[in-house]
Amino acid sequence: MTEVTLGRYLFERLHQLDVTTIFGLPGDFNLSLLDKVYEVPGMKWAGNANELNAAYAADGYLRIKRLACLVTTFGVGELSALNGIGGAYAEHVGLVHVVGVPSIASQAKQLLLHHTLGNGDFTVFHRMSNNISHTTAFISDISTAPAEIDRCIRDAWVCQRPVYIGLPANLVDLKVPANLLHTPIDLGLKPNEPEAQHEVVESILHLLRHANNPIVLVDACASRHHCTREVERLVDLTQFPVFTTPMGKSGFNEAHPRFAGVYVGTLSQPEVRLAVEAADLILSVGALLSDFNTGSFSYSYKTKNLVEFHSDYTKIRQATFPGVQMKETLASLLAQIETAGGAVNPGYIPPPIVRPSVIPGPASPETILTQEYLWTQVSSWFREGDIIVTETGTSAFGIVQSRFPNHTIGISQVLWGSIGFTVGATFGAAMAALELDPSRRVILFVGDGSLQLTVQEISSMCKWECNNTYLFVLNNDGYTIERLIHGMNATYNDIQPWNNLGILPLFNAKRYEAIRVATTGELDRLFADEKFGTPDRIRMIEVMLPRMDAPSNLVAQAKLSELTNMEG
Amino acid sequence: MTEVTLGRYLFERLHQLDVTTIFGLPGDFNLSLLDKVYEVPGMKWAGNANELNAAYAADGYLRIKRLACLVTTFGVGELSALNGIGGAYAEHVGLVHVVGVPSIASQAKQLLLHHTLGNGDFTVFHRMSNNISHTTAFISDISTAPAEIDRCIRDAWVCQRPVYIGLPANLVDLKVPANLLHTPIDLGLKPNEPEAQHEVVESILHLLRHANNPIVLVDACASRHHCTREVERLVDLTQFPVFTTPMGKSGFNEAHPRFAGVYVGTLSQPEVRLAVEAADLILSVGALLSDFNTGSFSYSYKTKNLVEFHSDYTKIRQATFPGVQMKETLASLLAQIETAGGAVNPGYIPPPIVRPSVIPGPASPETILTQEYLWTQVSSWFREGDIIVTETGTSAFGIVQSRFPNHTIGISQVLWGSIGFTVGATFGAAMAALELDPSRRVILFVGDGSLQLTVQEISSMCKWECNNTYLFVLNNDGYTIERLIHGMNATYNDIQPWNNLGILPLFNAKRYEAIRVATTGELDRLFADEKFGTPDRIRMIEVMLPRMDAPSNLVAQAKLSELTNMEG
Repeated sequence: MTEVTLGRYLFERLHQLDVTTIFGLPGDFNLSLLDKVYEVPGMKWAGNANELNAAYAADGYLRIKRLACLVTTFGVGELSALNGIGGAYAEHVGLVHVVGVPSIASQAKQLLLHHTLGNGDFTVFHRMSNNISHTTAFISDISTAPAEIDRCIRDAWVCQRPVYIGLPANLVDLKVPANLLHTPIDLGLKPNEPEAQHEVVESILHLLRHANNPIVLVDACASRHHCTREVERLVDLTQFPVFTTPMGKSGFNEAHPRFAGVYVGTLSQPEVRLAVEAADLILSVGALLSDFNTGSFSYSYKTKNLVEFHSDYTKIRQATFPGVQMKETLASLLAQIETAGGAVNPGYIPPPIVRPSVIPGPASPETILTQEYLWTQVSSWFREGDIIVTETGTSAFGIVQSRFPNHTIGISQVLWGSIGFTVGATFGAAMAALELDPSRRVILFVGDGSLQLTVQEISSMCKWECNNTYLFVLNNDGYTIERLIHGMNATYNDIQPWNNLGILPLFNAKRYEAIRVATTGELDRLFADEKFGTPDRIRMIEVMLPRMDAPSNLVAQAKLSELTNMEG
Repeated sequence: MTEVTLGRYLFERLHQLDVTTIFGLPGDFNLSLLDKVYEVPGMKWAGNANELNAAYAADGYLRIKRLACLVTTFGVGELSALNGIGGAYAEHVGLVHVVGVPSIASQAKQLLLHHTLGNGDFTVFHRMSNNISHTTAFISDISTAPAEIDRCIRDAWVCQRPVYIGLPANLVDLKVPANLLHTPIDLGLKPNEPEAQHEVVESILHLLRHANNPIVLVDACASRHHCTREVERLVDLTQFPVFTTPMGKSGFNEAHPRFAGVYVGTLSQPEVRLAVEAADLILSVGALLSDFNTGSFSYSYKTKNLVEFHSDYTKIRQATFPGVQMKETLASLLAQIETAGGAVNPGYIPPPIVRPSVIPGPASPETILTQEYLWTQVSSWFREGDIIVTETGTSAFGIVQSRFPNHTIGISQVLWGSIGFTVGATFGAAMAALELDPSRRVILFVGDGSLQLTVQEISSMCKWECNNTYLFVLNNDGYTIERLIHGMNATYNDIQPWNNLGILPLFNAKRYEAIRVATTGELDRLFADEKFGTPDRIRMIEVMLPRMDAPSNLVAQAKLSELTNMEG
């Protein structure tokens, strides 16, 4: 084979980076492109239920596998996906969004095609996406097309932000040299400027030498930019206590002896808050300090000795070092610490880790289930390898109280916070898990309100027999998180009640189980049942909860949110 | 009451224009605004299942009631709605999209709030919407806010394109003078420049005097810009034959003796094509000449005497008259024709109308149902007042073969063509119909594939007990329209089969009927059943159709489409 079609070239490139499921929907301007998916051995076309769900699914897939691609059609398809792309931008998720666009000839003639605004403007949707993409390519020349595709894929991978590729329908069948595929896409980070990095590392070592109570704080971008091993090595060498944020949860092994809890400002458990705020040096890795990630910006460090490691800069106290990327910086720092035998400050004595106490369960198994009980008990049911997906709402707050075993992956969308996200993301994560290790469980916690926005993606799980999924639907009769923020009794926070247990049979699930739990005893029995714990069918568990019941950290957060919203 | 809150001001203004249902979803930045919906007597909050569906619903509502509003929240909510807004732009639908945005103080401090990109940019989503809005207002000053709201509502009404209003959460509770509400919003069109209009009318009269075979061709914008009465008067006075396009269908009374059929270029029925293409003068009203509306641009007039009436310009042969709007121009033309007693050309003899023949039904009632049979028979079941909603796909093409009674309204999205649109639009249209006349039926024809994108909006119909709805689900086992365009046997055009008859009970419909028809006899019995015809519950009718069966005009269109797509 000396030549391949441009469409196949794209999918071969993605396959080289272990993308083996493509998400999206067919549409008039991408059909020929989709033919090429099937030409690449091992590549699958997921076929989602709608484009927003497809973007969510790609997001979930990527959080397990590092890269993901969705294909939509011009105008109607791509605009439907934009909320998912915006979320990927906010949360550092490097989706490759490929849009099938009208042929070059149609564009040149400004034809009044369907899926256009009817005004001959063929670049308007590209311009819109440009606002929420790291980079874009609106391909028009076959000779530069492979390089453009490579550039976009590289940027998605390296920068972990979404990229946009517009592919005219007539170009996907044109040929490009096959040997271009023999040179892998360069995925290396640009090296840090040596002098700047040297200065950064020396400054940090200086702070370390004088710190008696340093801690490590792990946030979302530590995982997203693949620095979790460096962080673990840092902790192993130094024995510093390590904390995560809500978005950073699962970015550090919670079974590690130096893991000390989740820090959320004033919403933290008291032991955690005390330990973080008394530190005399904080090494913050991959911070994304959004309101819900910080207890409405209620961080209150006593120290000025804050070091922030970011994917594209470093900050030490008040000094910013643009372009000094954390991956290489951490490696250099680790080398120095190793040289020093771990003890940069020989006087440092690692403090004991005070783990927050777990509240004991209730006496009677007939007790009505509460959020408090659910989130306390669920930790014992989790096991190594689990992928735990929590929806914005009570779940994203409740999960903070739980303890993850090692090698779990947490998926949530704390910064972007688009309700409905997790149903799509669960499908994507389930596909990724099936590819990597079908024994891994994908466990979703979603509210009855959020479920309604994207319910049809459960149909995709049925189609692909994602028998590794557990769908916990927390039924509290509406939008409880919004009720807590504003409008406790307002009907706009009500929803139409559904017969949720009928969803799997409606979508023709093959092997499934649909059950309802309402008491602590029922939940306990479920978690004790080994059969239930074995991922051999799609499971929906409707968890009945009181209408205004919520995790205590959400109740506190909601009050702070309304204040922020109303500030003049 | 000397003052009202800004939030209430907005909804009072909309209520003055007979908008009495507001569509959308609650979100942190619009909750205080939603409180104000309930303060306006007679105003309802629909509470949709997701934002894209809300936009579709508002679109459907507007096509019955002339104006509509949807409310979303910052970032996540508004981006989800964009495909619906783009459709409204393309199809001339004047939606008022109100977005609850963070407070002025949060914006000024560039807080890393949830629902943001995390980069302090609070105008990015407004900029994106700006591309598909007629005008926008990102409110920041309470003193000018009422005028900004009025300006946007006026533009939506007059120009029938979507407008965007960003309302900071802290401003909606601030007070504005109540007496502003006493002056109605000026909704008048700017008068045409008299000399230009005079020249236009004289030129048209000149053409009319010499035309022996003139026709009128009614397209979408005749309805959308409210010129249908003028057109009917024109036909009554002149007795010219009148045709519609697919998008213009229902824009002219099909029971009128001078109605002669639907023109779609080479895809027209032969009698229609012959009549239109032999005309020596064509008066085209509100044309939107998109591919699917014209049989892939296969219009083939013999005459150069084409007059195009548009909402914002007129074109006579090769001469364009910018700013000469059709509403006033038609009125002036009508006055001249009335003065002449209708007969501008005394030698004109109105030709007889040749109606396309209706194909007779099959002999045996056990015959498998086909699209051909469905679309031929359905005309007899339609009745005056019906609102008929047809999805992009086989339905939008099939409906062209049917005959509408008087006072029906057709809803489809031929130019934008976003699949799933009609499920949301049906909910909106049903709400509008319930407000105007609950005996009007809202009849949806949607494919099993399209249904999956937006199925949850049927839950809103259940919540509001839209017992005036008929949901015909055309089950042909996947995306038949795409199979015809490309990929006849490709699995990407397959979908997961659903138990569609379980949808209404899943969503807890109160009064409903769910039935399946698969033979001509079953369909005939249904249409003959008076009880079935009475709108007293939500009805879903699953119509089983062969996988590759399609209306003949769609088969022809699909071939033309693939050619256009692949043109280099």
